[in-house]
Amino acid sequence: MDKSGIVIIGIDPGTRVTGFGIVREVSGQVILIEAGTIRTDTKKPMCARLGQIYSRIAELIATHKPDEAAIENVFVASNPSSAIKLGQARGAAMAACAVSGLIVSGYEPTKVKQNLVGTGRAAKSQVAFMVERILGVKDTKWANDTTDALAIAVCHLNERRFARMAGK
Amino acid sequence: MDKSGIVIIGIDPGTRVTGFGIVREVSGQVILIEAGTIRTDTKKPMCARLGQIYSRIAELIATHKPDEAAIENVFVASNPSSAIKLGQARGAAMAACAVSGLIVSGYEPTKVKQNLVGTGRAAKSQVAFMVERILGVKDTKWANDTTDALAIAVCHLNERRFARMAGK
Repeated sequence: MDKSGIVIIGIDPGTRVTGFGIVREVSGQVILIEAGTIRTDTKKPMCARLGQIYSRIAELIATHKPDEAAIENVFVASNPSSAIKLGQARGAAMAACAVSGLIVSGYEPTKVKQNLVGTGRAAKSQVAFMVERILGVKDTKWANDTTDALAIAVCHLNERRFARMAGK
Repeated sequence: MDKSGIVIIGIDPGTRVTGFGIVREVSGQVILIEAGTIRTDTKKPMCARLGQIYSRIAELIATHKPDEAAIENVFVASNPSSAIKLGQARGAAMAACAVSGLIVSGYEPTKVKQNLVGTGRAAKSQVAFMVERILGVKDTKWANDTTDALAIAVCHLNERRFARMAGK
């Protein structure tokens, strides 16, 4: 397996479903490594579900050894209770990254859409189309959360490149 | 060191300051084991701060081997952004408990006050007085977050006792 280039893990956190996508960039080309979802058991207590998110992310990091992480900034939730739940899932995922020594960059959903499609108001299908095109895959039947996590990872790679080009 | 009885870790989560209190109950008497705060470096990125909360809680659990954990239910925050931050700190702390195999019970701040002082509107000084009295300590000069974490641990011990007495 090619070990050159930079590896990014993208995470779209949620207490029910957390999407993840791991990609490698080598010479400007982005290759899919692994992507999927962490589905927590809604019958279990919240602490067990957060533990599941933490453990799976830590396991993915140990397996694929990403260099950096990117996470969706939680969208302002409909009510404080949802905001706290989303925050909890995000906290478990970010702690897993930090304990594994990764720096985590956060991106607003509109920023990710702008970056990949060119407009912050892009439809989910447009984002999915661009993710598949960039990764050179087709008909993946990914869950939305998986696509979103991959989009975040690709967005982070682009932002890094822009920053390098701008000499930042 | 006495290893009998039940050991509880109480946690009052926050991104800046997380209070913790570990107590042991033996034959109805509650003994202080360790209490203090986890103060995160506000200059560091949020992920590093959440990693710090996770690691310190995991370390405390490994050292004192509590049987159960109790955490403050995050009070409805003033705005969604605060709610997400509080949720993140709570998520990191709960993940640390879950990964260590602990079950976490959550208590509203008013429930803790009701339990210790007899009224959900008790002042912080009244809660502190009761915590010191129950633990048989004086003039501790604990931070508010430390006292709150110990209050949560004591509240959980009381609730367990009530549940046993009620034959639940």
